[in-house]
This record gives sequence, structure tokens and C-alpha cells, in this order.
Amino acid sequence: MPESNATALDDATSGIDAIATLDHDRARRRGYPEAVYCSGKSPDQVRVIASEIASHPDHVTLFTRADEARAAAILEVLPDAHHDPVAQLLAWPAQPPEPSGEVVVVACAGTSDLPVAREAELTARYLGRPTQLIVDIGIAGVHRTLARTDQLRSAGCVVVVAGMDGALPGLVAGLVEAPVVAVPTSVGYGAAFGGLAPLLTMLNACAPGVGVVNIDNGYGAGHLAAQITRPR
Amino acid sequence: MPESNATALDDATSGIDAIATLDHDRARRRGYPEAVYCSGKSPDQVRVIASEIASHPDHVTLFTRADEARAAAILEVLPDAHHDPVAQLLAWPAQPPEPSGEVVVVACAGTSDLPVAREAELTARYLGRPTQLIVDIGIAGVHRTLARTDQLRSAGCVVVVAGMDGALPGLVAGLVEAPVVAVPTSVGYGAAFGGLAPLLTMLNACAPGVGVVNIDNGYGAGHLAAQITRPR
Amino acid sequence: MPESNATALDDATSGIDAIATLDHDRARRRGYPEAVYCSGKSPDQVRVIASEIASHPDHVTLFTRADEARAAAILEVLPDAHHDPVAQLLAWPAQPPEPSGEVVVVACAGTSDLPVAREAELTARYLGRPTQLIVDIGIAGVHRTLARTDQLRSAGCVVVVAGMDGALPGLVAGLVEAPVVAVPTSVGYGAAFGGLAPLLTMLNACAPGVGVVNIDNGYGAGHLAAQITRPR
Amino acid sequence: MPESNATALDDATSGIDAIATLDHDRARRRGYPEAVYCSGKSPDQVRVIASEIASHPDHVTLFTRADEARAAAILEVLPDAHHDPVAQLLAWPAQPPEPSGEVVVVACAGTSDLPVAREAELTARYLGRPTQLIVDIGIAGVHRTLARTDQLRSAGCVVVVAGMDGALPGLVAGLVEAPVVAVPTSVGYGAAFGGLAPLLTMLNACAPGVGVVNIDNGYGAGHLAAQITRPR
Amino acid sequence: MPESNATALDDATSGIDAIATLDHDRARRRGYPEAVYCSGKSPDQVRVIASEIASHPDHVTLFTRADEARAAAILEVLPDAHHDPVAQLLAWPAQPPEPSGEVVVVACAGTSDLPVAREAELTARYLGRPTQLIVDIGIAGVHRTLARTDQLRSAGCVVVVAGMDGALPGLVAGLVEAPVVAVPTSVGYGAAFGGLAPLLTMLNACAPGVGVVNIDNGYGAGHLAAQITRPR
Amino acid sequence: MPESNATALDDATSGIDAIATLDHDRARRRGYPEAVYCSGKSPDQVRVIASEIASHPDHVTLFTRADEARAAAILEVLPDAHHDPVAQLLAWPAQPPEPSGEVVVVACAGTSDLPVAREAELTARYLGRPTQLIVDIGIAGVHRTLARTDQLRSAGCVVVVAGMDGALPGLVAGLVEAPVVAVPTSVGYGAAFGGLAPLLTMLNACAPGVGVVNIDNGYGAGHLAAQITRPR
Amino acid sequence: MPESNATALDDATSGIDAIATLDHDRARRRGYPEAVYCSGKSPDQVRVIASEIASHPDHVTLFTRADEARAAAILEVLPDAHHDPVAQLLAWPAQPPEPSGEVVVVACAGTSDLPVAREAELTARYLGRPTQLIVDIGIAGVHRTLARTDQLRSAGCVVVVAGMDGALPGLVAGLVEAPVVAVPTSVGYGAAFGGLAPLLTMLNACAPGVGVVNIDNGYGAGHLAAQITRPR
Amino acid sequence: MPESNATALDDATSGIDAIATLDHDRARRRGYPEAVYCSGKSPDQVRVIASEIASHPDHVTLFTRADEARAAAILEVLPDAHHDPVAQLLAWPAQPPEPSGEVVVVACAGTSDLPVAREAELTARYLGRPTQLIVDIGIAGVHRTLARTDQLRSAGCVVVVAGMDGALPGLVAGLVEAPVVAVPTSVGYGAAFGGLAPLLTMLNACAPGVGVVNIDNGYGAGHLAAQITRPR
Repeated sequence: MPESNATALDDATSGIDAIATLDHDRARRRGYPEAVYCSGKSPDQVRVIASEIASHPDHVTLFTRADEARAAAILEVLPDAHHDPVAQLLAWPAQPPEPSGEVVVVACAGTSDLPVAREAELTARYLGRPTQLIVDIGIAGVHRTLARTDQLRSAGCVVVVAGMDGALPGLVAGLVEAPVVAVPTSVGYGAAFGGLAPLLTMLNACAPGVGVVNIDNGYGAGHLAAQITRPR
Repeated sequence: MPESNATALDDATSGIDAIATLDHDRARRRGYPEAVYCSGKSPDQVRVIASEIASHPDHVTLFTRADEARAAAILEVLPDAHHDPVAQLLAWPAQPPEPSGEVVVVACAGTSDLPVAREAELTARYLGRPTQLIVDIGIAGVHRTLARTDQLRSAGCVVVVAGMDGALPGLVAGLVEAPVVAVPTSVGYGAAFGGLAPLLTMLNACAPGVGVVNIDNGYGAGHLAAQITRPR
Repeated sequence: MPESNATALDDATSGIDAIATLDHDRARRRGYPEAVYCSGKSPDQVRVIASEIASHPDHVTLFTRADEARAAAILEVLPDAHHDPVAQLLAWPAQPPEPSGEVVVVACAGTSDLPVAREAELTARYLGRPTQLIVDIGIAGVHRTLARTDQLRSAGCVVVVAGMDGALPGLVAGLVEAPVVAVPTSVGYGAAFGGLAPLLTMLNACAPGVGVVNIDNGYGAGHLAAQITRPR
Repeated sequence: MPESNATALDDATSGIDAIATLDHDRARRRGYPEAVYCSGKSPDQVRVIASEIASHPDHVTLFTRADEARAAAILEVLPDAHHDPVAQLLAWPAQPPEPSGEVVVVACAGTSDLPVAREAELTARYLGRPTQLIVDIGIAGVHRTLARTDQLRSAGCVVVVAGMDGALPGLVAGLVEAPVVAVPTSVGYGAAFGGLAPLLTMLNACAPGVGVVNIDNGYGAGHLAAQITRPR
Repeated sequence: MPESNATALDDATSGIDAIATLDHDRARRRGYPEAVYCSGKSPDQVRVIASEIASHPDHVTLFTRADEARAAAILEVLPDAHHDPVAQLLAWPAQPPEPSGEVVVVACAGTSDLPVAREAELTARYLGRPTQLIVDIGIAGVHRTLARTDQLRSAGCVVVVAGMDGALPGLVAGLVEAPVVAVPTSVGYGAAFGGLAPLLTMLNACAPGVGVVNIDNGYGAGHLAAQITRPR
Repeated sequence: MPESNATALDDATSGIDAIATLDHDRARRRGYPEAVYCSGKSPDQVRVIASEIASHPDHVTLFTRADEARAAAILEVLPDAHHDPVAQLLAWPAQPPEPSGEVVVVACAGTSDLPVAREAELTARYLGRPTQLIVDIGIAGVHRTLARTDQLRSAGCVVVVAGMDGALPGLVAGLVEAPVVAVPTSVGYGAAFGGLAPLLTMLNACAPGVGVVNIDNGYGAGHLAAQITRPR
Repeated sequence: MPESNATALDDATSGIDAIATLDHDRARRRGYPEAVYCSGKSPDQVRVIASEIASHPDHVTLFTRADEARAAAILEVLPDAHHDPVAQLLAWPAQPPEPSGEVVVVACAGTSDLPVAREAELTARYLGRPTQLIVDIGIAGVHRTLARTDQLRSAGCVVVVAGMDGALPGLVAGLVEAPVVAVPTSVGYGAAFGGLAPLLTMLNACAPGVGVVNIDNGYGAGHLAAQITRPR
Repeated sequence: MPESNATALDDATSGIDAIATLDHDRARRRGYPEAVYCSGKSPDQVRVIASEIASHPDHVTLFTRADEARAAAILEVLPDAHHDPVAQLLAWPAQPPEPSGEVVVVACAGTSDLPVAREAELTARYLGRPTQLIVDIGIAGVHRTLARTDQLRSAGCVVVVAGMDGALPGLVAGLVEAPVVAVPTSVGYGAAFGGLAPLLTMLNACAPGVGVVNIDNGYGAGHLAAQITRPR
């Protein structure tokens, strides 16, 4: 473990060891794929990581929050990865596992919540669950929500994605027996404060049975839902 | 207008002029009773103000946020005032006006919201409106809310009082044609942050038609509802 | 209800059902036009929704928060829509209803509040109310406000739009008998915190009779005002 | 539906209908017991509700956040209820169901988190799960946490309760395959800001698989964990 | 400067040197009296400091935020001090200086703001200014404010004290040529957030000419006003 | 006062009456120049206002927060205006009044605070005061501050501009007899939170004699300082 | 590892294993004494822990945040513990180690900061350092601070404790070569927001060399200072 | 000290004296190099400062937060400066001092934290310490952290850099005897609130021995670490 010096530092961001300590053991230890959070990494760093992953085709790796530049860097190295530009997610190898376990239903309150909802759905899908997506059933027109009651009740876990008032998860939790994973989004303006409003709403949901994840964290929601519905 | 000095200052809190500039003209100017906000005033100050009001029996005065000590001070001077300890509200003279205008329906999400809901209802009543009160119809059991749809739709204005997730006003606004006045309450704990959570929820309600007042401000809500439903 | 799979997901954002559940019933149920919030939707999604709406000319639809790109997408499909670029609002069909009900007066504190004030005025207009607009009467020169007292008192509802200190609604509420709908704006800097300061000011207005909507929410304010002044 | 008047209002808080709309249907609809949140209700109101519940012995009812005065009011009416003063929880009838489903392990970071942890454990127990409790394994001495790895991995769901830095759930989530329900507590001082610090930590946990509930919400955590581990 | 040890520490709070480094030089250096902030000091500590001050009768000392217990401790040592219980302020020696400089007018929005307004007025008085106090002229009844225009314009500096919406300083600043010192108070509830709302309002006042001090800081406001109006 | 209609609305932003109600009376009423806050107004609106002002050369008008585009619009109409790009301020007519009153010293903590400091200095200058500017004397090197003690003490009012920790005003206030106007700036990062940190520091300054203005509000600070130092 | 049941739960808070997992190994692992944070633990729980500790006299244990009731519980079991009521700290065995390493100087801005300063000093003392305490040298009278420059420069680490504006650590850091540990306190009111203001000030200190600990965390500061000055 | 006038102001940003008061004495007084914070300064201002520094080659100067434009301005004047674009740091003269004192180990939780970690490492290096860098050992895979225990224990001070949950410093502090300097980063999204979340986590770290610096303040962390490990 030699001490670095100023010259050595110049090279410090070039190799995989200099920028990341990948947790290849995670699939074995926790039973789930590795994920690479691309935001905050440079396209170059993302490319280096993708190259390292190219030699581990035995389990699926997800790349999340990959904007156009970062997606291009990944596809350069892994051209056959599945790429969903709405969800800003890539998966490699592209083929999701055969679905097993209970169904994950992802419901979102409005059209603007779709990117997060799709990220959640795809994540659950690549963790091996059957999934369904319901769009635009916010509580301003509660009949739209109630019309989906049977579908919601058929789920082993419901992921509910909502911005603005974030009231939908509490409503759904009052209708179903299964756990609800709530995802606040940054959709909205003004007193939505970047998602703080729906986040607080969900944490204070009157109906029990709601677990909340970070604002816009579709990946985390889909992952948690897949764990909840895993085959036993 | 002589300048005060230190000795004169000693007497400065004893007379009505030293502590308040009552707006007796308000009933004429705006058409609504005067109100005295008792919190933050000492029982002695409240008593002095009540004494001043005793000589103006021609229009109703409301005393809001009157805890036990302040209510006692008022009742000493105005023993025949109407006193509602739950709402911490007193009215003098005690007789409300003959109801006119459209009906104000006050609905609250939970039992703990009752004090604020009652303050709203009584205020609207003393401003001359017919009123109705619905208790405990939070969205965790949405069938309870929907069961009241006809009653809610019969109102000229619905006041909706809710703490915690504060989701009820948005739900109600999606069901009725009349305006909704939303009152967040400080009911809840943790991430309710003293009413901040329901306040934000209500400001971000997806359904248009919601006007929000301050946390726990039943008086303001009842007042606004009475203005909305005033006879034309 | 077949389960989706990764291939099907690729098509998930293309049709109207995949991105929105329009509430065509709303006009019948609540008596007001449908509105489409364009921010957060892609121009493509907005175009798909506009196409769907093109087959429902029987009631007015409003498109709010439509920037240049989204407005262009709408005008491609609905070229005869009314478009107000300042308010970022489009209406289709373009002709507002014959005015009925009481007058809605919209007053704003400064020139920078105009976009929000216009959104409020246009919304009330398309919901069928007669409207008036007063510009630049902030409390720093209170004589400008007082000079408008008669006009303000003639309203069935006053919408007051203000940023920075947000003091105008409280002042107006003390002058008029009608309800005041207060709209904080994000105009200002520093300790205005994106509209938080005027929002708090309005929620704490000393004069009763003020209902507050979200920061910059001209649409919601105009809608609420139109409901308050609806013909009875 | 007669309109109320001032006289009628005087009686408005005396009967069950005036203070609550109980959701006896909930057990059938969602499969879980009814719960009464006692904080914010007066002891008298709690007693009225307990009396109403006394005639529904067919399913368990939980009373949460019952301090000494409220617990006494309940025990007056339901003297054979189970009462846990640390968790401020009562259950009636006292006998929990025969355990079924997967094990819920509740782990707390410090001794001061015990009341919340116990509320979580008891709730899961009364919803029919086998439960285990681990105390005082915060990350300041990570060997204490790691020593419990096998027990944590045996759970169908781990509830992790922590105040201050709230780092424990993220650590546990990295060790186990099962979902983690994270409960921030108000334990701490200064920049813990009443539980805001651990709440944010948990929402930002680097390891996926964490669902967060409100600060100090042991009841909600136990409920969610019981749903996750329900027999299929 | 010997190092302390555990035994010595036992005595560390007993003498004046162990608890305070009084700035007797301040009067000479800045031209204003020394002030002792009593809140957060124990009555014993306050008594020790008062004893020390008893030997410096050559300039006035103010004791601020002195509740009943701390006032009693001071009066034990300095029985002839001037004590204003409303303002929680004591002055010793009791005689204020002969007034010189311009007049400081202190105006407060409501009765509940009186303690802070009085603290400001007394401070200015003991720093040698002529003072006047105006009570209860909040903007909800703007005619009450305007009726005082002449008096406000006669001041060399106006101190304006207001809680809740905190709109009064901005209104006054638009009426007068002199500087305005604005003092937000913690009067209010809910979204007043302990004085945060009026603080932000005042910082965002549209009219220039407003300098803001801390919430409830009547002492600081009176001090600043006295500096502004000092004789030249 | 005819009611507007949709067609009329199309023209509503074109004339001066439609966008602003200028307060030409202000110079007479308060004795200070009119100021136009340009941020949030479109370049077109700024040009319309400048044209209106072109017919009032009898008193100085200041244009604040004028970025390049808005400055160009003003200079088109008022080509001989004084323009300071660092301070983003224009003045017309360009000639400041002959200095009178006491000296305003503007001191800033760091180089990055210069734009705000210059805005303050120029404003005071155009309100007729002699001014001086001191740059870069933050408390990290307190000897730099102390070296300026004599200059600071010569001022009738010191404006102190600082970002990051915002500690300089409190230090200066302890050194001088004159009032200090404190201006927090948005200079800094992270926990400076856009100027919140220095704002709070200044509001809590231990030394009395500090009046605080909004973050980055050099105009307000210069204005207040000019009022404080006005000739009597 | 048998599963608990409702009956077993009744006993769950009685033994040491049920309430705490003491880290006796810590002294060996990190070289510092164990500490018990008493706030949030019941006096009974504190007594149980003290009893457990009574059998480990080989290394010092600190009890922090012990109010009167908790201190009494400890002294019942460990009557010869050292007890400092100002700092709310107890140490057992009472004898601190022989001082070694560099001197820790603890300086506090005001008298009200003494409890936190003493907690810091005592902690460093019981971790084996020589210590010194300086009281009341806030920046409002900077000459008081500068007068202590030599003493401050003699330290191996300076702990600076301050509330309100929290400016002292930044000033001290600019004077000395040694690291500064900054402790914000909750001393103050209004916009001090319970210590948030000085916390932000310290985090934004312009002078490098400042490490910040939690509000009122004298224990943490003393501990960190003792680590910094440990003998090498 | 002549008073400025409007014409003179035009030149006020051109010379070194007009924009900065460099603290060349600092190296002598505190023993550490001068640093220039480039963000918020224009490239022109940075160039002027660099030119001034060019005549002081006797001690190292660091330029921090230098983006591309500012780095170019510096390199124009000081072409042989060391430039690290990842850390946005330049040093001139380029040669760091011969390492002395204890080793500073810098560890970061994730790849995205690298720029801050590198800034810390380089700063410590240029202050004369031997340094080491460890990348990507966040607590989600705690075995990665524990695998580095020996290296961490070999440090005289550990700088730990982390965004999101910010849990790593608390974990490390529990493993080592040396002080930990914790740096929260703005890496993350949603409820990370720009680094607020990890900042609060670190301030509430359960393990003592953690000193926190501002969000993203790698420079401050490296500086503090170098002071802690300075040769004695």
C-alpha cells in the first residue's frame, strides 16, 4: 500500500480500481442484480465500469439514471443491452428472467409520473417478477381509481407513484390487503418543493401498510416490491 | 401627543387604548362581526377588551382561542356569552343570526380534528349561515367519504378539516361543484411537522377548487365559507 | 389483463391509454372544463392528448403551463385554439362562454406577477365569468391600492397575486366584503425562497376571508374564483 | 339531515356518532384489525370509542399512543385488555392470534428506541406473525450488528428502528435478502431535528430494499411487516 | 494559567470570572450601556453578575429577558432597579438619561406584540431617546394605520413590531421618509412557524428602507433605533 | 370600467397601463428616487417602462437587477444612462446628486461579494451620500478588519456585505458607534443554502446595532443607509 | 433463539440484555472509555445499566445528559462517581487519568454556553488530556478574544462553543495553527432556530481548520479533541 | 482616504486592491498556504489575483473550485501550476512539500464522491502530509469497508467523503482510534436535498470522534486533516 504522490494522482481516475469497488458478490449474497447509478459519474467513468461488467455476463446488471450521454457510453461497450430512454435505464444482458413470485402492480397518478413508474416496473421485471402498469388514476377523479380496485387487489405488492399532493398511495392502501410501496415524485411546482410535499403526505398516510422510498426512486421501489413478492 | 417617559410607561398596559385599537367599524365596512384573538393576550388584557365590547351589544363579537383562563375572564364580564370549550370559542351576544345564504358543510377527517372543525362551524353559524358537521371520513376508508357524497354536494361551500396526510380536501373537491375551503390541522406526529405536511398536501391538491387557510385556523375557514355562501 | 413483458414495454408510451386516463366525465360531474397540465409531459405526449381531445369539441379544454414547444405541439393538432403566450395557456375551442355570475377581479402586486394573473383571469373567463385585471398596486405605495377600492368592492371574488412580501391579499381582504383568493408567486429572490415567503404571509393574513392556492397557481385561483362566483 | 343550530352544537361531542365513524368493515376488507389512535383524543372520547368496541369482540382492536390517562379510560371499559405501557399500546381481546407466516425480526439501534420497537413488535404479533426483538446494535460498534447476521437473515421481514444518524437500516439491508422496514425515531437532539435526520438517512439508504415509515411510527412498521410476511 | 483538574472544576461556576467576562469598556468604546441577556443563565449566575455590576453605577446596565425568578435575583442585589415585567427588562440605575436626538416611534400590529414593543421602547429610552408607542394598527384595518401617518412621519426612526403576516413594516416604510426597524414576533400559530413567516415578509418588504432584527428582539430594535436617531 | 373579454386580453401587455402603475409621486412623498426592479420583467416590458420614465427627467430613476438583455433595452431608450454591469444597475439621468449627509462606508467580506457591495454603494451615491468601499476584510484574517477600524468609525452608517458564515457585520458592529446595515449574499455553497446561513448569522449577531436586509439586496441596503445618514 | 410471545414480552424490559448491548470491548478497540447517553432512557433503565457497569471498574465510564432523576439513579448504584450537575455528566471511577498529550483549550462565547463547554472539558479530561477553560469571549467585543491569543495558540486543539451567531470558531481558527472543534449550542431565540443558525455559521466558516459537531454536543467535542491531542 | 464618486466607481474592479486584500501573512501566522476560492469570482478577477501571486513564489498557493474558464485564466499567468481537473484545484508552485507528519487516509463512499475526495487528498498533500485514497466502500456492502480496516487504522486522521445517506463516517469512526473528518457531498437526489441528508447524518453520528465540514468541502477537510496530523 504505497503512499500516493502528486504525480500518481494524475492517473488516479483512469482504471476501474481507481473509481469503483464493484460488489459482484452481491447477487450471491442478497440474491439480486448489481446496479450502477450513472448520475454523478462521467460518461468515461460509466464506460470503464461497463467494460468491467462485460466480463460478468452470468447475472443481470442494471444501469440507472443514464441520460443520453451515459447511455451512449454504455451501449458502445454493451451494444445489445436493453435501453429504455423514458426510464433512463439499461439492462445487460437484455433478457429478463422468467417471471416468478407474485405480481407487482405499478400505478401512477399522472402522465408526468411515467418515467419513475417505468423505472419501477422494469426493475421489478429484471428482478424476476410479473408486472403490470396502470397510468393516470389520481384522486382528483376517484372513480378512475376505484374502477381499478380488482386489479390492485390482485397484486402481491402495489407500487404507487405520485407527485403533487401524493395522496394516491394512502387511498390505495385503504383498498388492498397487500403492502404498498409509495414513490413520491418531483412532479409539480411551487409548494411541491421538488417532491417534499408528496413525500410528507406518504409518510403521514392515514392507512397503514405504506413503505416510502426516496423521491423519484423508481429503482428502489421496484427492487423493494420484487423482494416483497419473491417466491417462497 | 406628549412623549412618554419611564414613569408613564409603568401605566401603559392598563387602559383599553394602551392595549388595543378595536375596529368597531368593521361590521359596517366588511359586514362581518369583530373577532378577538385571545391567545398571546393575558387574561387581564382579554378582560379589558371584553369590558369595552360590553358597550357594543349591537353586533356579535367572537372570542377565539380562549383557553380556560381567558374564557373565565370573558365570562366574568359577559356572563351570558355562548361558550364552546371544545372550539375554545365564545360569542356575545349568544344568539346567532337567523340562518341565510347557502349551507356550509364542515367535514373532518378524524376525531382529533373536531376542535378545529367546530370552530369553523360555529364561526359560519355566527356569521349567519346554516351549517352541518360530518365527522371522521378520512380517505383510509374511502367508502365512508363516498357515502356522504350527496350531503357534500348539497353544500354551497364545503370546509374540509384534516391533519396527517391532509388528503381529504382534494378528494372532496373532485366530487363537488362548490368551492372547498381546506384547513390543515396540527394533528399527527413526526413528519407531520406540526401541520406542515397536510398544509403542503392541500396546496398541491390535484383537483382545482381548493382554497387553503392557516394550520388549525377553523375561524378563518368558517369566515371564508360564510363569505362564499353569503346571500346575494 | 395480460401481464406486460419487456418487449411490450417498448411500446408503452405510444397510445393515449398508455399515458393518460382522461376524465371526460368531469364537465358533467363537476360542471367545469377538463384541464391538461403540460409541464412534465413531453411535447409528443401533449400532442397525443390534444388529438384525443380533438374529438370532444362539446366542452372547452384548457392546456396550462404550455411552453413554446408544447404550445406548438397543441397548435399542430388544434390550430384554432386560443393561445396566450404570457399565461402559457391554450383553450380549445377558442370561444369562451357567455359571461354569467358575479365579476372576478384579478389584482396583481407587480408587473412580474402578470403571467400568473393572466392565467387566473383567462381561466375564470373560460369558466364563464366576467373578469377584470388590475396591475401593479403593491402595498409599498398604498395609495395606489386604495384608489382601486370601489373596483375591488364591486367584485364577487377578488383574486390577488403577489410575490416577495405577499402582503397585498391581507390588505385587500380588509377592504372588501367578498372572498379573496390569494396566489403567491415565485417573483423575488433571496429570502423569498421561490415563493415560500409570500405563501406564508398569505396563510397568516390577519384579515379573515383569504383562501390560498399554490405558488404560481393562476389556474387554480381562477378556477376557485369562478366557482365562488358561479350563478345560483 | 337536519341542519344543526347553536343549541344542538352543545351536545355534539357526546355520542359515538358525533366523534367517530368506526370502520368495523376493515377487518373483512383488508384482513387486519381496526386501530384507534388515541393521541389527540380526550380520555372521554377514547372511553366512548372503547365502549363501542366492547360490542365487537369478534376481532382484535389495537389502541395506539395511549398515555396513562387514556390507557386508564380504556381499561375502565375493557379491563381485560392487554396493556404494554412501554409501547403505549393496548389490545383487546388480549390474546394474539396463533402465529403464522414468516418471522418478523425487529431490531433497534439503541435502548432509547425500545418503545417504538416494542410497538412494532406487538403490532406484528397481534396481526398474527411470529416475532423476535434485537436491542442495541447500532453501527458505532458494527461487530454487534454483524454478530446477529444469521438471525437477521432468518427473517421474512426486518423492521429496523433507529434515531440519531439512522444508519442501521441501510447496513442491515445490505446483509439480508428480505425487505427492510425502516422506522426513524425522535431519539436524539440538536441536528437530529426531532427525527428528521434519521428519516432522511433512511430515505437515502444506498442499499435498495428499504421502505420507510413515519418518525416513531412503530405501529405502521409492524403493520407493514405483517403484511409483507403474511401467509400465502 | 494553571491547568484545571477535576477538583478545581467543581468550583468553576462560583465566581464572576468563571462565568462571565463583562465588557465594562463597551460604554466608552461604543457609547452605549452594557446589557445582560438573562435567559439561559441560572438565577444564581444572574445574581453574581448583578453583584459585579453593583460596583459600576456610573453607567446604566440593562437586564433583558428576565423572567420572574431572574428578576427577583437581580432585585435582591439591586433593589432600586427599574423593572418592567411586561418587557421582562430591568435597568439600573433606574433613571433614564435626559432625552436627546430624534424621536423613536414604536408601533405594533397587535396587542400580543406589546411585550416586544415595550422592550424596544424602553431600550431606546435608556439609550437616551424620546420615545412614543402606538398599539394595534395592523393592516387588516388599514385606516387605523393611515390615521397615524402624521405621528409616524414625525419620527427620526420608526420601530415596527408585528407577528403573523408581518406586513406592517412594509406599509409604514412606504409612508415615511425615516428608516424603519422591523421586528418580527413569535405571535401567531401554525404557518407562522414561531415568527419565521413575519421574518420572511419583512426581509422581502417591497418598500426599501427596512432593516430587520431577530424574532422578538425588542432590545436589538430599540438599540438600533437609538443609534440611528443619535444626536449629531 | 368595462369588463375585459378574451379579445381585449390579447392586447393586455402592450401599453404602460397594462404592465405597471408607476409611483412618480414617491420622490415627493418619501424624498427618494423611483426604482425599477428589472428581474422578472421581459426586456420588452423594461423598454416600455424606460420610455415612460424618459418623460420624467426631473428626478433620478434607478434600474436594478438589469442583466445584459434588460440593460440593452434600457440603453436603447435612455442611451446616456449610467450603467454599472458589475452591479447590474443603471441610473438616469446619469449624474448623481451633490453628496450631502454623513458618509456611508460599504465593506464586503470577499471579492465575490463585490456586485452586491457595488449595488449598495451606487444606490447610496444616487440618493445623495458620500460613499467609500472596502473590499475583502472577512474575519478569517481579523487583522485585516481591525486595520480598517478608523475608517469604519468615521462612517455615519456602515453597510457590511458578506456570504458564507456572514460573521463580519457582528464583528464590525462591536467596533463602531454607528448603525450597521447587514447584507447576506448567496456567495458560498453547500450549507450556505443560497444565503440562508449568513442571513441567520446576521439576525443572531451578538452585538446590537445591526439591521438586516434580504439576501443579495444591495439596493435595499444602500437605500436604508442613505436614509440613516440623511442630512437633518 | 426462541420466538417471543405476548407473555414473554411483558418481561422484556427488565434485564440488561433486554435493554442494552454494552460495548465493553470499545476501550480495547478504540482506546477510549464507554459512554452511556442517559436522555431517552428511563431512570430504571439507567440504574440497570449502572449496575452492569459496577462490575467493570477497570476502565472509566461516562454518563452523559443525566438530569437530576437519572443522576440520582446512577449515584444509588455508584455512590462514589464524580458528578457535575452543570454539565449533567457523571464519571466512574471518579479519578481521571494522569494528563498526557497536548492541552485542550475549551473556549465559550457566553455564560449560557457553559454547560456544554464544561461537558467538553470534562470529557477531554477523563480521556486523559490536560484542559483549560475560557469563558465569555464572544466576537461582539473582539478585544476580549484577542487578549487570549497566546493561550489559544498554546493549545493542541481548541474547542470553541457558541450559540446565537456562532461566529467565534471562525475567528479563533484564523488565529491559531491547531485544529478547532466547533460546537454550536441551542442558546439563543427566534432565528437561532434551536442552534441551526450557529451550526450553519460554523459549517461555513471562512477560515479552514474547523470541524463541527452536533448542536450542544459537548461530549462529542471533548472526545474528538482528546483524539486529536492524543500522545503519539 | 478620498471619497469615491460615480466616475471613480467605473474603475473599481480593475486593480488588485479593488477586488481583494490578500493575506500573504497567513502562511507565517498559521503555517499553512493561502488559498483562493475561485467560484463567484470572474475569470478576469481570478487572473488579476494569480498575477499578484506570481510575485510570491516562496510559499504554495492553492486555487480551489476552478472550473475550466477559471483554470485557463490561472494557467495563462502561472503556466507551470499543477492542475487537477477532477478536483478543480490548481497549485503553484507545482511541487508539493516533502511529506511529514502522520498519514492522511481519504476514503469515499462512491465513485461520484471522487472529485471531493481528490480535493481533500491534494490539499493535505500540498500542506505536506503523506496521503492515501480509498474509493467506493459505502456501507451497502459493509464487507468492502471492513476489508480496509487495517489501512484505515494506520492513519493519523481519516477523511471520509460520502453523499446520499452519509453513513460511512460513523461506521469508520467506530473502527479506528484516530479522528475522522467527515465530508458530506451533494451526490444524490430527492430527499438528499443537495447534501443536507448526509450532513445531518454525520452530525448525528453515534460514534464519537467525527468532525464535520461543509457539503462538498474537500479543501476544508484536507486542511483540517493536515492540521490534525501535523508533525509535533
